[in-house]
Amino acid sequence: MPTTALLNIGSLVTNDPAQGDGSPLGVIRNGAVVIEDGTVAWTGPSDSAPAADTAHDAGGRAAIPGFVDSHSHLVFAGDRTEEFHARMSGRPYRAGGIRTTVAATREASDEALAANLAAHLREMRRQGTTTVETKSGYGLTTHDEARALRVAAEQADEVTYLGAHIVAPEYADDPDGYTALVTGEMLDACAPYARWVDVFCEQGAFGEDQARAILTAGQARGLTPRVHANQLSHGPGVQLAVELGAASADHCTHLTDADVDALAHGGTVATLLPGCEFSTRAVYPDARRLLDAGARVALSTDCNPGSSFTSSMPFCIAIAVREMNMTPDEALWSATAGGALALRRTDVGRLAPGARADLALLDAPSHVHLAYRPGVPLVTDVWHAGARV
Amino acid sequence: MPTTALLNIGSLVTNDPAQGDGSPLGVIRNGAVVIEDGTVAWTGPSDSAPAADTAHDAGGRAAIPGFVDSHSHLVFAGDRTEEFHARMSGRPYRAGGIRTTVAATREASDEALAANLAAHLREMRRQGTTTVETKSGYGLTTHDEARALRVAAEQADEVTYLGAHIVAPEYADDPDGYTALVTGEMLDACAPYARWVDVFCEQGAFGEDQARAILTAGQARGLTPRVHANQLSHGPGVQLAVELGAASADHCTHLTDADVDALAHGGTVATLLPGCEFSTRAVYPDARRLLDAGARVALSTDCNPGSSFTSSMPFCIAIAVREMNMTPDEALWSATAGGALALRRTDVGRLAPGARADLALLDAPSHVHLAYRPGVPLVTDVWHAGARV
Ligand SMILES: [Zn+2]
Ligand SMILES: [Zn+2]
Repeated sequence: MPTTALLNIGSLVTNDPAQGDGSPLGVIRNGAVVIEDGTVAWTGPSDSAPAADTAHDAGGRAAIPGFVDSHSHLVFAGDRTEEFHARMSGRPYRAGGIRTTVAATREASDEALAANLAAHLREMRRQGTTTVETKSGYGLTTHDEARALRVAAEQADEVTYLGAHIVAPEYADDPDGYTALVTGEMLDACAPYARWVDVFCEQGAFGEDQARAILTAGQARGLTPRVHANQLSHGPGVQLAVELGAASADHCTHLTDADVDALAHGGTVATLLPGCEFSTRAVYPDARRLLDAGARVALSTDCNPGSSFTSSMPFCIAIAVREMNMTPDEALWSATAGGALALRRTDVGRLAPGARADLALLDAPSHVHLAYRPGVPLVTDVWHAGARV
Repeated sequence: MPTTALLNIGSLVTNDPAQGDGSPLGVIRNGAVVIEDGTVAWTGPSDSAPAADTAHDAGGRAAIPGFVDSHSHLVFAGDRTEEFHARMSGRPYRAGGIRTTVAATREASDEALAANLAAHLREMRRQGTTTVETKSGYGLTTHDEARALRVAAEQADEVTYLGAHIVAPEYADDPDGYTALVTGEMLDACAPYARWVDVFCEQGAFGEDQARAILTAGQARGLTPRVHANQLSHGPGVQLAVELGAASADHCTHLTDADVDALAHGGTVATLLPGCEFSTRAVYPDARRLLDAGARVALSTDCNPGSSFTSSMPFCIAIAVREMNMTPDEALWSATAGGALALRRTDVGRLAPGARADLALLDAPSHVHLAYRPGVPLVTDVWHAGARV
């Protein structure tokens, strides 16, 4: 197999503490990466890199593992510009919320949904994101949820069944009937396309009993749970996620001490989505409290047209540092290795032999610039599975 | 002269209330711009655009006037990554602050300063900024201030003499001696290169009497004042700026009712720099209070390696909407027309016949997306004085 070397990387973040400076980021000064067959074959100091068939000179720029965005909602149609515009202008607006997007998504063709997803994935890729999870949740019928997952499975790395995003409008007076659909016929149609099952566990959406039913039904079909938990208020979501062995509890904005404790001692990652709080002017989750307790934290965009339409992981890092008291190092780790952990992936989120060769070069001497230079598009070159994109 | 037409602009912001929807942004739906000799020759509905020698199809994307960044500090050398890293990680660090950058700047060659400035201006241009003000202030000797302004004048649209950034280290025990230098020999050497005179009026920097002496000395040499005012605490800066007819009072973070009143009724623009509060975890200025009082507000980056290393006007817009209660429309106006007002320029910051043909195309149907999609690099194409950059 031909090999490719990236040489003269001023500061190379590997997320492998056995390398470089021994920190969790495993930073190698003046490092190099050798790629073979889409995989990292070697990392180390540039001046001792093995010969390769092709070599690129990074010119002293920094490199990081490609971002792992473990939470997005990208199978949708339409946008909600007017709703955002009115909300941020203090103007009254009859917002349909998620239902607006459900209506537009149901009306869209498969091709339109696939094209919109592809455009957003390209946009993410250009910003350094090389692993993306995405969900259904704007169909809310058996047909529309299954086709959303089919479209997602063709393009995204990880696919989550979120029939339980909100109660479908047709079941507004019969939420238990909707839960029966989500755990029955809809699950049957969706399970083949998904690895994960998710539920929006919140007052006004799905309560503890319903959420438990939905997640365990998914487990019975071989899906692993992840949970939209404790976003808008204290609730049972986080505890349920840990109890059921969910890979991740997402949002985690309103936590009791018992919730923090459960996350710190269980196997569930706390995935924080500050783009959502940014765009809804809500209070941010307390990352510091979770980290100090020993919880493992991931950062993701939650990219969706309603509450968080950013696709930028660098933006989430900058906000995490400014607003959530994460250090620049912790924020980068959470946006790469943390996301991989939340997706139970060991092949991404790090740069060490055997990992998928996903990395981003920055127009900066250090990964710290992602927080130091907020909003500046610093990602200049992206490699995905060893191929330059 | 050959003409160029940009057709099929889904939403064209002109900042000319006589056009389009009659709002302050003067938004034309499905608009067009015709450019001749680097200048806007015509704007209006795309289907009635006059014939042009060359035509570009915007494909329904939005267009806005190029951003006017009326406050930056780009003649410098070195960066302050370690200081930022330590501050945001809660680690102690013997920060030299501005003095660190002064030492690095004095040591740098003219060529190195010019190359660093050029790189930052290119970075800004790519993000849609087509008019840039920049300052001296990291030299603090007659020689180093004058060469900073000479370097700036070769590349930037607007140049400001800021010998009074901090008291030079050599004059630590003799601040009045430094003020005498700034108003004497240094001013003589600097005035030929600058249009503006500025002073950092703050406790620990320059007090009211010193600031008045510096600004009036500049005025006597034909420079117009602008003032770093009320950033860290209440102080005399804003009142002094209005009294002396300054074009702008910059920062305006800590204002009394009398300060707000002075800005609302005087001829001085309030320039807000939220990148600075973002990167120093400080409280944001209250844009809403200023706007509601009738003050004219500009938004700029304050781009500098110490307190605000962003060069992104879209980022400043997103923060202004999230944190300062500006509407998306107000924030865009302030980042374009507001900046032009703060620089007393009528040829930029708007798209109407006679204006310089500076505009940015967005990968979005509306300018609202600059706030709706924070961190996403939406600027795809930039025209500067009629030339695509
Ligand atoms: Zn979500
Ligand atoms: Zn400044």
